[in-house]
Amino acid sequence: MSTDAITLYSYWRSSAAYRVRIGLNLKQIPCSIAPVHLLRGGGEQHGEAYRTMNPQQLVPTLVHGRRRITQSLAILEYLDEIHPEPALLPVDAGGRARVRALSMLVACDIHPLNNLRVLRYLKYEVGMEQPAGDAWMRHWMHEGFAAMEAMLAASSETGAFCHGDAPTIADCCLVPQLYNARRFDVDLAPYPLLTHIEANCLALPAFKTARPENQPDAA
Amino acid sequence: MSTDAITLYSYWRSSAAYRVRIGLNLKQIPCSIAPVHLLRGGGEQHGEAYRTMNPQQLVPTLVHGRRRITQSLAILEYLDEIHPEPALLPVDAGGRARVRALSMLVACDIHPLNNLRVLRYLKYEVGMEQPAGDAWMRHWMHEGFAAMEAMLAASSETGAFCHGDAPTIADCCLVPQLYNARRFDVDLAPYPLLTHIEANCLALPAFKTARPENQPDAA
Repeated sequence: MSTDAITLYSYWRSSAAYRVRIGLNLKQIPCSIAPVHLLRGGGEQHGEAYRTMNPQQLVPTLVHGRRRITQSLAILEYLDEIHPEPALLPVDAGGRARVRALSMLVACDIHPLNNLRVLRYLKYEVGMEQPAGDAWMRHWMHEGFAAMEAMLAASSETGAFCHGDAPTIADCCLVPQLYNARRFDVDLAPYPLLTHIEANCLALPAFKTARPENQPDAA
Repeated sequence: MSTDAITLYSYWRSSAAYRVRIGLNLKQIPCSIAPVHLLRGGGEQHGEAYRTMNPQQLVPTLVHGRRRITQSLAILEYLDEIHPEPALLPVDAGGRARVRALSMLVACDIHPLNNLRVLRYLKYEVGMEQPAGDAWMRHWMHEGFAAMEAMLAASSETGAFCHGDAPTIADCCLVPQLYNARRFDVDLAPYPLLTHIEANCLALPAFKTARPENQPDAA
């Protein structure tokens, strides 16, 4: 791994940034956290400086030397390639595919529907009231969690973590999504495997340190 | 690569399935297409047989021997690992991160917002009328395309394709998304780089053969 400094542009409550913080901690990669306040002044992510770095105007962005990397899962794969130990993906292609699919279930099919920009659109463009907005949030989380619980329950590859007995990028995605679920009072009783794995994760310092409330920019 | 048979559960108009069809064609991997009709009888993806294989009840699913793989990008990464030539990702970690980020811009931040299940929720749960539904579709495509155009324009790594002069998984994501854009009359004039790359892609037989209208289940 090159010795260039690493900076993560992060927001304490962003579940996508939270995923990357877990990965950095698991690998014990030294990193500066640069907070981007998503709410203050209309959102610092829309300012010119950040927008040039990340035209999507979303967090996180990882800067490593001259390379600027967007998309949390692309960042986690990058970290796994430049700093292979401990591995965040299994060694076999089939296992890697399974872990990536579980990660993308969260990162493609739950989180983007619940993102701040989407809630704003529903509120200001569609005129959706708060109860309907909360129902929207919960609906997509339940859809995703039910599928993830079923996939984990059906596989002998599930262990103390989503895949076997060590954390992978799937766990880096699951734990922040469950944090979001609690913010929106999602009933997690139907998902005993997800919450069991979550508890195993949060017993590890790498996950604990990455929690939103432990960030320098936490409100 | 093992000699086990490969089957892709696909729907002709699904842009996520289209991505995988391109990847299979580029690598010339023999594969049976098993159509899953997303509209007929309330949707074949919700039937018990398919749901057991893919609890998310979304297409595509790739079956390779006993392994069932969901999520189009997880499938493309798997194909690249079991059948490395021609490579769908660059060799350097930085380039791989860039290609994955461009792919996820489409696969996480455009397509899931425009998916059939989301349109149905907006129509039946939110009561959104057609013009507002079309505006919703176009809004998220414009947001994503504008960011992607800016990212491609700003990088010396952009070539005839999204990354250099050979197709990668980013091109496998871009071309189907532009197909969707045309279905919804999105004005593509602001995105000359995207449409230039699209034209380069569609000049290749692997992309042409994968087009929705060339599928056995095309209406």
